[in-house]
Amino acid sequence: MLIYIAGAGAMGCRFGYQLHKIGQEVILLDNWTEHINAVKEQGLQVVGDMEEIVQIPILRPIEATKEADLIILFTKAMQLSQTLKECQQIIGVNTKVLCLLNGLGHEEVIREYVSEKNILMGVTDWTTSLQGPGKVILKGTGSVNLQSIDPIGVEKAKEIVDILNEAHLQVTYDEDVVPSIWRKACVNGTMNSTCALLDCTIGEFFNSQEAVNIVKKIIHEFVEVGMAEGVVLEEASIVKYVMDTSVKAAQHYPSMHQDLVQNKRLTEIDFINGAVARKGARLHIDTPYCRMLTDLIHAKEVVLNIT
Amino acid sequence: MLIYIAGAGAMGCRFGYQLHKIGQEVILLDNWTEHINAVKEQGLQVVGDMEEIVQIPILRPIEATKEADLIILFTKAMQLSQTLKECQQIIGVNTKVLCLLNGLGHEEVIREYVSEKNILMGVTDWTTSLQGPGKVILKGTGSVNLQSIDPIGVEKAKEIVDILNEAHLQVTYDEDVVPSIWRKACVNGTMNSTCALLDCTIGEFFNSQEAVNIVKKIIHEFVEVGMAEGVVLEEASIVKYVMDTSVKAAQHYPSMHQDLVQNKRLTEIDFINGAVARKGARLHIDTPYCRMLTDLIHAKEVVLNIT
Repeated sequence: MLIYIAGAGAMGCRFGYQLHKIGQEVILLDNWTEHINAVKEQGLQVVGDMEEIVQIPILRPIEATKEADLIILFTKAMQLSQTLKECQQIIGVNTKVLCLLNGLGHEEVIREYVSEKNILMGVTDWTTSLQGPGKVILKGTGSVNLQSIDPIGVEKAKEIVDILNEAHLQVTYDEDVVPSIWRKACVNGTMNSTCALLDCTIGEFFNSQEAVNIVKKIIHEFVEVGMAEGVVLEEASIVKYVMDTSVKAAQHYPSMHQDLVQNKRLTEIDFINGAVARKGARLHIDTPYCRMLTDLIHAKEVVLNIT
Repeated sequence: MLIYIAGAGAMGCRFGYQLHKIGQEVILLDNWTEHINAVKEQGLQVVGDMEEIVQIPILRPIEATKEADLIILFTKAMQLSQTLKECQQIIGVNTKVLCLLNGLGHEEVIREYVSEKNILMGVTDWTTSLQGPGKVILKGTGSVNLQSIDPIGVEKAKEIVDILNEAHLQVTYDEDVVPSIWRKACVNGTMNSTCALLDCTIGEFFNSQEAVNIVKKIIHEFVEVGMAEGVVLEEASIVKYVMDTSVKAAQHYPSMHQDLVQNKRLTEIDFINGAVARKGARLHIDTPYCRMLTDLIHAKEVVLNIT
């Protein structure tokens, strides 16, 4: 099976590496020059739970030519549309596209480039980080839930689940994955912007009653908007899931902290709290916490001269 | 006239110095040991628009003994109650007390220690900073508006206005000072917590449409709550006043940035956005922006281990 990983950051490298190890034909796609050069010249260096160097092809999306059997999307949210545009030539009538990006609203973007029967939406709690260009740190375990958005695609989706499981990615075919995507978005929506603004770890942020107040308000807005969109969300259980995650991930800086504070890069805020604020506006549901957090993050991007 | 300045920080030192220069008997009150020692040993050093060293007595509030003719309150908001308690012995039946603190809700605190006929509420846009213990930087000009909260006190209040004007403090007796206090609170409420959270100057913060969105929402909450309390506030003119102030003060870090970011001190948030959130809750007016900003600042205080 020819599998492209579109967006070969930390998570893309993990999935690409694990699929390469079981003999699948994997090609990484990315536009980060230093990373491309490092992987081409020295191979992909894996450290952490296992240590090795593997040779996996890496291309810019526009350089890819062979039609894909499967494309796994792992781009930054704001690069999704551009990446799909740049690799249209590898999307055939039978190419499956699996979206594992954080955040909300990606399905609408993917539909512009991929026919519904080929779209798989998913969510993962695997975590990985890059130590620098060409070097990925694999630690801990995780899982994936995914679903074909069109019933026609279910059978093929389950074949993909089997392949991913052979690669030890712990994948479940989920008859109703959208609530899980929203639940993960609640984790990101409560931790990412807040830890980026306060320049702290997840554990440091959750360490006050005031922070918990904020977290609950954000989750309430996500749940109100999601329910109005027809997604079944149980607020109390999401609060518990977020609180539990905050304990497990207490030592970590979330990805938005890495982007905004550590690397002075644009954030994914428009696809997390910003997506809920936009959906809320369309549905006439007020979402002041999501709206203000989105505006604060954008204001900080301007303060830092990030464009 | 025996005038105490309760809270001899930057602003207290300015007022104390200018009143001392016209021959009034001035005593500074503070609890900051290094500052007390510096002023006692080397005098109060004035730099900036004028340069000199003056000898002005400085005491801890509990050490003051002589009954005051006038006490000008310039403490940090959270120190107001404690300071009044510590200097009760100098508050006589005719002692006037002028409050020039930033923020809202101080009148209720002062009423616990001072009879209504002796309370003067005011607001000032003078700015001053301390370069360190015993050293105050005086630059630029400003003005003061004040009012006796009881009509019985008007005549005496106008005598105080004359004395303060003799000291070039540009004071106006204001028949309706409360809207001016709220307008100043809107300046603090839009700039202080935001610049402290984003670690930026006022000009840097106001440099994006997203920031202006936030500013307008905050002002709207202040106006809604103030109006419900019977204060006449004109929202559009306050927005203009805040925007104009942001241009004039563009280079400055507001005081909450100095407290939280530069000096890792507790902030006055509970008396600015926090006061509006509390008043709003009592009046059943939702103030999500003020509430969230208050919670974010407190969460950051906890992150920084400030107590």
